[in-house]
Amino acid sequence: MSEYIEHDVQGVSAGIVEKQYFEAEELVLDNGQALGPVIIAYETHGRLNADRDNVIWICHALTGDSHVAGYYSEEDEKPGWWDFMVGPGKGIDTDRYFVVCSNVLGSCQGSTGPGSINPETGNPYGLNFPVLTLGDMVKAQKALLDHLGIRKITAVVGGSVGGMQVLEWCLRYPEFVRAAIPIAATTRHSALAIAFNEVARQAIMADPNWNHGDYYFGNKPDLGLAVARMIGHITYLSDESMRLKFGRRLQDKFDFSYNFEADFQVESYLRYQGKKFVERFDANSFLYITKAADYYDLGQEHGRGSVVDAFAKTRARYLVISFTSDWLYPTYQSREMVKAMKKSGLEVSFCEIEASWGHDAFLLPSTTLSNMINGFLYNVSSQYAPQ
Amino acid sequence: MSEYIEHDVQGVSAGIVEKQYFEAEELVLDNGQALGPVIIAYETHGRLNADRDNVIWICHALTGDSHVAGYYSEEDEKPGWWDFMVGPGKGIDTDRYFVVCSNVLGSCQGSTGPGSINPETGNPYGLNFPVLTLGDMVKAQKALLDHLGIRKITAVVGGSVGGMQVLEWCLRYPEFVRAAIPIAATTRHSALAIAFNEVARQAIMADPNWNHGDYYFGNKPDLGLAVARMIGHITYLSDESMRLKFGRRLQDKFDFSYNFEADFQVESYLRYQGKKFVERFDANSFLYITKAADYYDLGQEHGRGSVVDAFAKTRARYLVISFTSDWLYPTYQSREMVKAMKKSGLEVSFCEIEASWGHDAFLLPSTTLSNMINGFLYNVSSQYAPQ
Repeated sequence: MSEYIEHDVQGVSAGIVEKQYFEAEELVLDNGQALGPVIIAYETHGRLNADRDNVIWICHALTGDSHVAGYYSEEDEKPGWWDFMVGPGKGIDTDRYFVVCSNVLGSCQGSTGPGSINPETGNPYGLNFPVLTLGDMVKAQKALLDHLGIRKITAVVGGSVGGMQVLEWCLRYPEFVRAAIPIAATTRHSALAIAFNEVARQAIMADPNWNHGDYYFGNKPDLGLAVARMIGHITYLSDESMRLKFGRRLQDKFDFSYNFEADFQVESYLRYQGKKFVERFDANSFLYITKAADYYDLGQEHGRGSVVDAFAKTRARYLVISFTSDWLYPTYQSREMVKAMKKSGLEVSFCEIEASWGHDAFLLPSTTLSNMINGFLYNVSSQYAPQ
Repeated sequence: MSEYIEHDVQGVSAGIVEKQYFEAEELVLDNGQALGPVIIAYETHGRLNADRDNVIWICHALTGDSHVAGYYSEEDEKPGWWDFMVGPGKGIDTDRYFVVCSNVLGSCQGSTGPGSINPETGNPYGLNFPVLTLGDMVKAQKALLDHLGIRKITAVVGGSVGGMQVLEWCLRYPEFVRAAIPIAATTRHSALAIAFNEVARQAIMADPNWNHGDYYFGNKPDLGLAVARMIGHITYLSDESMRLKFGRRLQDKFDFSYNFEADFQVESYLRYQGKKFVERFDANSFLYITKAADYYDLGQEHGRGSVVDAFAKTRARYLVISFTSDWLYPTYQSREMVKAMKKSGLEVSFCEIEASWGHDAFLLPSTTLSNMINGFLYNVSSQYAPQ
């Protein structure tokens, strides 16, 4: 197939992309309930080859969306969330691969979620939206894959909750997945991860505007959602990255406010993150997606409690990537995952990247990360290249 | 003096104690403002000796109070917060020492704080209460010390924000302090610690019942304060302790709720902690004390930016104690403190205790911790014992 190249992180942009929509009449969820119609927003880059198998399927994290790379228009100032990774000649090379990224079911960036209209009532679902599993999200992605006529996925790739979906893809549709790259992921949330999600949910539900999820025609629970985001944001960073980025630097260089305004830069940064977030995200979607992630337990769901037995059902080659300073999905969890994969006789590469930026490190431009993914994909593609 | 004994953690109770009150007509704060009258709630154990110097001064943490040991009544089911440490024959032996613990200025457990009546208006201060410093809190404690006729403190002891007050005691009143035991403390908050405090404050201020601090005659910001407490509570534990204590165990043994009720034990534990907390703590006090702790910067305030220069002004012997799993005031911060103390030519013992329970480890019964403190206090007392 094509040869492995040292890609350029600052390389060519994936260009102008369009948000596309796929509608499924109905999706039967893991709990047996039928949900429909289901709309899935997605975006693609590159071209599907004749064998319909040069596909890189990207799963976004908790609050991400389908806009993985490129720009929506010439005027657009901000590219997609993984623009440094996805594009011509980049880590995930759109000259070679057909890249698909869809917004997860339950989210609010074009896909059906609690803020969508419930056809039975004509009003937004709110809490009448069914509590989803990560499996349901992957099932919706599989419907999109079928719709696109894709026969094989070269690799499913994703970080954080996206990485957990990567694992679920391997378990649910082993015959479709040649390789998988779970980044900063885990087979199940620790008590600490659940605790942070729960407090974030409590912050939303404590906001009287939340109104038991019924707020789409009135004031939104913006304050609660902002606090939830701030909690999350702290967990995506690290002690070291916060020290490097903010330390104890003040907003006003000269003195404290001696009131409850933001004194330290880290305070105003968090407030800004919270404020910005409520403009783009739906509080109920935050509840649904965090709950699905908390529920997820790969070993329990697929191996009767054994992660080894669960992985034994998969066929993919794996590249597992973790970051030393990630304390939300700590690197020891990736090590455990790799150990289980090896016990299941799977082909696994593991890389623990020395990084100070915590859990969110996979979102930051990194030649190491890009080259690693590029090289792995090259190897996988070569294996399946026509002789 | 008395001899060093291996004390019994489960030893004799400090018995029945009474909350006492000291009133100062006025206290001039670090910002120049006069606050008055100032009431300080406190409790004592043991007997002051003839030299009035067998004193152990205990500083409580953020949400603690003066009730350090023993019981308020025969019917009382819960002893003071450091009961395993303070009592006859215990780590801090009340047969030998006169123990004093007072509620910090700005708190709500008997000492003057934002919930107290402002004599100028006849209503609670609310946000008209001045923004305090940890120095102001120590200054109020010093007024109590003078009132009690104490001439010397054998040791000032405290954990967390209490440990920061211990350091401030050594700097502000070096001639009064023979020894100091800062536990799980720091000379200044990291960006991470400030970030958590700020999000907790935002959770309170996001609650409409907070009403800019003016809620004493109406509904209190209980939901916001509960979220703040939950955030704090997570930071007092550790990944490991939460795994050991909760793991992914469910409330209901059989299945998920598939709604937004507490499914996991860690969730209901946090909700319970939040709910319990609002019954005993004032939201504005939480704001004031966390802000004072965030502002504190020992090197900046006392050494023109140099922690070494600051410590050079102190005369105490130190026992610095940290816990391996503490990620709020990580053990590297204690190491830095010890390094600076040594550079200043001070006599320092340092002990990093291998503990999985995180920041709150100092509140949990530990023979290691008790023996260490007992031995150190014995050495200090012996040094000053009449020949």
